[in-house]
Amino acid sequence: MTVEKRNPISVSSAIERVVNQNIVMTQTTVALHESINHILAEDIVATYDIPRFNKSPYDGFAIRSQDTVGANGDHRIKFNVIDHIGAGSVSEKTVGEFEAVRIMTGASIPEGADAVVMLEQTVESNQSFTLRKPFEANENISLKGEETREGDIVLQKGQQINPGAIAVLATYGYGEVPVFKKPTIAVIATGSELLDVTDNLQAGKIRNSNGPMIVALAQKLDLKVESYKIQQDDLKSSIQAVKEAMSYHDIVITTGGVSVGDFDYLPEIYAAIEAEVLFNKIAMRPGSVTTVAVADGKYLFGLSGNPSACFTGFELYVKPAVQHMMGAKAIYPQVVRATLMEDFKKPNPFTRFIRARATFNGKEMTVVPSGFNKSGAVVAIAHSNAMIMLPGGTRGYKKGYTVNVLLTESQSYEMEWQL
Amino acid sequence: MTVEKRNPISVSSAIERVVNQNIVMTQTTVALHESINHILAEDIVATYDIPRFNKSPYDGFAIRSQDTVGANGDHRIKFNVIDHIGAGSVSEKTVGEFEAVRIMTGASIPEGADAVVMLEQTVESNQSFTLRKPFEANENISLKGEETREGDIVLQKGQQINPGAIAVLATYGYGEVPVFKKPTIAVIATGSELLDVTDNLQAGKIRNSNGPMIVALAQKLDLKVESYKIQQDDLKSSIQAVKEAMSYHDIVITTGGVSVGDFDYLPEIYAAIEAEVLFNKIAMRPGSVTTVAVADGKYLFGLSGNPSACFTGFELYVKPAVQHMMGAKAIYPQVVRATLMEDFKKPNPFTRFIRARATFNGKEMTVVPSGFNKSGAVVAIAHSNAMIMLPGGTRGYKKGYTVNVLLTESQSYEMEWQL
Repeated sequence: MTVEKRNPISVSSAIERVVNQNIVMTQTTVALHESINHILAEDIVATYDIPRFNKSPYDGFAIRSQDTVGANGDHRIKFNVIDHIGAGSVSEKTVGEFEAVRIMTGASIPEGADAVVMLEQTVESNQSFTLRKPFEANENISLKGEETREGDIVLQKGQQINPGAIAVLATYGYGEVPVFKKPTIAVIATGSELLDVTDNLQAGKIRNSNGPMIVALAQKLDLKVESYKIQQDDLKSSIQAVKEAMSYHDIVITTGGVSVGDFDYLPEIYAAIEAEVLFNKIAMRPGSVTTVAVADGKYLFGLSGNPSACFTGFELYVKPAVQHMMGAKAIYPQVVRATLMEDFKKPNPFTRFIRARATFNGKEMTVVPSGFNKSGAVVAIAHSNAMIMLPGGTRGYKKGYTVNVLLTESQSYEMEWQL
Repeated sequence: MTVEKRNPISVSSAIERVVNQNIVMTQTTVALHESINHILAEDIVATYDIPRFNKSPYDGFAIRSQDTVGANGDHRIKFNVIDHIGAGSVSEKTVGEFEAVRIMTGASIPEGADAVVMLEQTVESNQSFTLRKPFEANENISLKGEETREGDIVLQKGQQINPGAIAVLATYGYGEVPVFKKPTIAVIATGSELLDVTDNLQAGKIRNSNGPMIVALAQKLDLKVESYKIQQDDLKSSIQAVKEAMSYHDIVITTGGVSVGDFDYLPEIYAAIEAEVLFNKIAMRPGSVTTVAVADGKYLFGLSGNPSACFTGFELYVKPAVQHMMGAKAIYPQVVRATLMEDFKKPNPFTRFIRARATFNGKEMTVVPSGFNKSGAVVAIAHSNAMIMLPGGTRGYKKGYTVNVLLTESQSYEMEWQL
């Protein structure tokens, strides 16, 4: 067997090829309480103004501002309270000269009134109060439509539904929400060296850690994921497993078998199912042999059997593919700038991704590799919340350099920040 | 009724009071595939080295480095292949002088060999190959224990289980994982002005958006959450609802009723259940009346009925409480620095939190308010992935200032980044 020659493409070209496929999920509707993290399939248009009526942002008294002219500490003006309403109630009275309606936060401003005096601004007595300053028209009033006007697009097609979007959908009465379906994922770990998590160790073998890791990565994306049994290095059964997985799932992820060795069957599997291989070599470390193919409107990801490379491949290619399939407008990984806190001397012609810990130290974003960082490393992934991205062709990086950092997790900090 | 006087405390003091409560969940074990996002309840100690044996990081040939001395382009050295093993297999042969074992990525290095020649570095013929460069001892070998040694703490008690931690746990055979239980949350929206999401609109009333929003915020934290029916402004039934929620849940969140108006029953509810109020006034906008209390080993959060204030209260106080209860070491919100992209002129004596959109523009982290930002605003929350934090006592902020930004969501970007 001769060694297959592969031409590496850049990371950004690889991502572009992945997200430029015409592979998208169909539209559906889900209940509001199940819609979190879905992508909206339609624009949501305001069917009424927000606020829907002039309302009080405070507990206080609704008055006519014109009656407050000339009020001051030496000349307190007295108002008679003609009604008393809570939020949700509407006063049937009209506020006249030197009259007031006691009103609670969120309540509709009564007819005639055009300002609200906060409780703290009054001295109350029986059925009346005095104030000591003039009020302007619309003072302390949340005006109808000041936030949003009827007809405004309040949420956009392609937007990921976050808790704030849920609040907007609830406001406009969406018990059901138009979304794109989420893809489901099949994970097939391949390699005769792999044992199941609870198997006893054997010479020359290791436990399958990539399979559970990918399941967890999919769970973090709120996707349904199915683990298939570990595939031995056997072409026929591997083809069968991939075919079966494709019949049930939108994305099939294999780990291992992507290299160029005698037991690396991925090219033959892709040939057998007539998949179009988008690329099988990327100018990146780790995971240069990461392979992505498409067949029958499904994505096939051939991730490395090395945990760090496998993780990197998921972050760089599977995540954007998922976002693209779900119809998201935002598909690219979240990147920040941070100060490198230790030297990284290893030069490399390829773009390097280093599992790392990014933290705000009170003054700036900093980042440091999260441990031993070879392709096969696993512990460093667990201690990372980010990946340092070092462009290829450089001589290495020194402490103090500013680098690009891809955030892989939203994590809380151990360090308190001051306010 | 007189207006109750409340003394505001700082945001950081408020967070400290919340996380200094002796309210923690008990330990349990969960299946590995259900352990994501839990907090580890014990240190995980390496029961063997990683790698567990000297292994090949490449497909190639295992040889004795001493046999390669003097090799060069004019003097290729020939090796005879005596065995051929895949990953997971162990050769029974011992590699002797000018002998080699063909070996796959991940396979155990055979006896006698101390280097691996990559396939690409050889010219193969029948049962033999030649190479053209000398190899050093341990060249192209992943050495036993180079990543982790037996006895090392590989994951720490108090660490949140992320996909990398799942991989480590799988490696060490943890089918079950020791974790702290997750708290469950009850949500009770209060206010006679509130309608259910699918109710028809009525004069003076609005739909309950805070309840569904909090459910979504809890779902994002992977917590179980139960929505109680909307509570009218009625003391007796409100006390009953809170008591019932406390009997089933570890955290009870109410929205609304936190102010000082005639229908704001929260202080009376807390008195009725003999709760200890940690604070009821914070030097922050929005949400200065956010109240946190504890009773019977449960947390009670009284969040504002204003959506932006409600959201801010959840991010600032509920999230750290959840992390603390679950035994997490990291409990503080994720903060970054970013360049403010528009003026924010409103001065305030209190610390201000502004729903905002943080983005890396290819050069720096930038942030901009995500819309109309009053306390009652709802649409701006949906378009935010962060909150700008502006310390109190300042005159306002100008475009170009660097500000602290609390990241509330890990979100993908619409803008492509180049590599």
